Amino acid sequence: MPTLDQKEHSVSSQPAPPARGFPRAEFVDRFQRAQQFMVEARLDALLVTTPQQIRYFTGFDSQFWESPTRPWYVVLPVSGSGPIAVIPEIGAPGMAVTWVEDIRTWPAPRPDDDGVTLLSETLREVAGSGGRVGAELGRELSLRMPLNDLEAVRARSGVDVVDGTSVVRGCRHVKSELEIDRIRFVCSVASASYAEVPNLYRRGDTERDVVQKYRRDVIARGADTSPYLIGVAGPGGYDNIVMGPTDREIIEGDVLIIDTGTTYDGYFCDFDRNWAFGSPTAEVARAHQVVWDATEAGIAAATPGATVEEVWKAMDLVLTAGGSLGNNVGRLGHGLGLQLTEPPSNMPGDTTVLLPGTVLTIEPGMEFAPGRMMVHEENIVIREDGAELLTVRAPRDLPVIPWN
Amino acid sequence: MPTLDQKEHSVSSQPAPPARGFPRAEFVDRFQRAQQFMVEARLDALLVTTPQQIRYFTGFDSQFWESPTRPWYVVLPVSGSGPIAVIPEIGAPGMAVTWVEDIRTWPAPRPDDDGVTLLSETLREVAGSGGRVGAELGRELSLRMPLNDLEAVRARSGVDVVDGTSVVRGCRHVKSELEIDRIRFVCSVASASYAEVPNLYRRGDTERDVVQKYRRDVIARGADTSPYLIGVAGPGGYDNIVMGPTDREIIEGDVLIIDTGTTYDGYFCDFDRNWAFGSPTAEVARAHQVVWDATEAGIAAATPGATVEEVWKAMDLVLTAGGSLGNNVGRLGHGLGLQLTEPPSNMPGDTTVLLPGTVLTIEPGMEFAPGRMMVHEENIVIREDGAELLTVRAPRDLPVIPWN
Repeated sequence: MPTLDQKEHSVSSQPAPPARGFPRAEFVDRFQRAQQFMVEARLDALLVTTPQQIRYFTGFDSQFWESPTRPWYVVLPVSGSGPIAVIPEIGAPGMAVTWVEDIRTWPAPRPDDDGVTLLSETLREVAGSGGRVGAELGRELSLRMPLNDLEAVRARSGVDVVDGTSVVRGCRHVKSELEIDRIRFVCSVASASYAEVPNLYRRGDTERDVVQKYRRDVIARGADTSPYLIGVAGPGGYDNIVMGPTDREIIEGDVLIIDTGTTYDGYFCDFDRNWAFGSPTAEVARAHQVVWDATEAGIAAATPGATVEEVWKAMDLVLTAGGSLGNNVGRLGHGLGLQLTEPPSNMPGDTTVLLPGTVLTIEPGMEFAPGRMMVHEENIVIREDGAELLTVRAPRDLPVIPWN
Repeated sequence: MPTLDQKEHSVSSQPAPPARGFPRAEFVDRFQRAQQFMVEARLDALLVTTPQQIRYFTGFDSQFWESPTRPWYVVLPVSGSGPIAVIPEIGAPGMAVTWVEDIRTWPAPRPDDDGVTLLSETLREVAGSGGRVGAELGRELSLRMPLNDLEAVRARSGVDVVDGTSVVRGCRHVKSELEIDRIRFVCSVASASYAEVPNLYRRGDTERDVVQKYRRDVIARGADTSPYLIGVAGPGGYDNIVMGPTDREIIEGDVLIIDTGTTYDGYFCDFDRNWAFGSPTAEVARAHQVVWDATEAGIAAATPGATVEEVWKAMDLVLTAGGSLGNNVGRLGHGLGLQLTEPPSNMPGDTTVLLPGTVLTIEPGMEFAPGRMMVHEENIVIREDGAELLTVRAPRDLPVIPWN
């Protein structure tokens, strides 16, 4: 069982907030890489409809996605010099400050034709009748547009809308240094707020109280917001990691996990921390050491050329030796970037190869006793010589918030 | 031009936070109304895939939607006593605490078959081969599942997946008193934080500084989070209401708008406030009075039996008389509830009839000079005798943050 000292990792201290936005060259690079993947997939264009894809290719940064009323479209031609935005009029001022030059709008909402004609004409112009247009049809993707409208676009444009997953995944799998800077910054901020939790907690607090104090603290330290912020406590362990917080008061003997996807300039961290309230039992203390050791093993295995299945295997060996009864999460970490979870998945059968610039969560978890889980998580980026830790490494021994 | 005094509205002061969650009877009622709408639409079942629809029909409350990796499904049979959840194993503990009794899981992620077989079998069992299953295919809706998987489910199940929009819209258009309580509470909290903005602001603050102080304040007052929180300032007015905040420092002569969709127990408020930094020009001061007066007119027109087109018309008359050059938003308010924006739209051609229990934003905005907008917004619920204001009504005169 590996028990590397944390000094062996290059631990990041809190860096200054990176300047927001990206230079034009970054978008040109993303666009040109998309064009290469389109050639490989024999596509004439890529159509994207979701906030993260549109932001990735254009830089358009808005919270307006929270309103589902209006569809938004961006078309990337396989030849040509940049994306074409086909968007509601309300979005024109925001899109005008991006690198996108070809912006086409319609007055939305317009129930009879919410962009269907404009998008159909654009796709026909770019791909030609019978041309192949890739779209977000595959795994971990969905289309942000009414499916009725997609059928109308297919009929009116005459183009063949096919799966464009390989282009989206291909582009986003490797992060640029500017993207990594953002993830490192938000990891450092979230790490600092985790370190503050023992000071934020007051006797009598509920799960929700602690989580909301954390939420305010991480904003004060420079994060933008926390779209994902879970807190679950239970006697000697928690039974899940995707629900909560609730109004259950934390009591002596509880183990609390907080897991956060907090963002800066659109980029997520995704990692957790655990605390014992009063001295943990030997079983609980050992469970934390096991998942910590599994994390070490995962980090050590995350080298360029390795598959994520191999990273999973390195962790799984430690968990199994440590008495894991299994877990219901289905994987031990995943990609990370503009979304809380991105491909690949650290699990059996995922043979995605790690490349320099891949950002990954290392997330071993186990049920160590019936109905009681322990999950740990750190964030890394793959470098030529191995993993660089983006989070401030947790201690091997479960942190204790004294009860007396 | 109407200039009603605010005392004519029943202004809500900050109520206590409603208890979270809903009693079983509320879900039974929602389910039975869905069944009635299914009968009208000749559907054998409804399939829902998105967070808000699944929460509405089951009560399942999780932030785990932020991860796009795993699809989730809930099937509502036209006959039968409750929904069927077809979900990843990781979600079982969370779904088990809802009123749903029939929970079917698969070990996800499973790239070869992420619920396709289990969902296909369930749909065939419930609807029969050739049966009609409604899904989220229409306006303001999208499917949260890979489209490739939908095609596989269509082929394997033998059911006909058709448009189920009328069922979803029909159920959610009228809010229960428990839903209204949540919206009223979050409106009151957001109102209190708006009132605090002149105290939160410090000379030298950027748009982002003010917005992030607001974000922390509204959490401290009992809100859960602010998925939508815009701040835009500009000299004598702003040029859009969907971008920002930026790191632009607020200076004398600016008008700042903050617009928030803040939540409590899943329910949104959606309203804005404006401030002048230093004495506003007569033109700016008048623009605020015009949109405030238009809001009065919209609130007065929002009676049971009226259409939202009539509510729009009442506002549009005031804006036109007040010198509006138009606006790019496309409507003057919309529905509100589990989502920041829901149908209907206060706009020409939307003949949706207001019913007691409809919750609406009243949102008149105008470009009052080239490139300079003024937008105002309040939230109301339709009662038998007219509108009940859920927000604390803004003053008619633009609030001024003194510069000297």
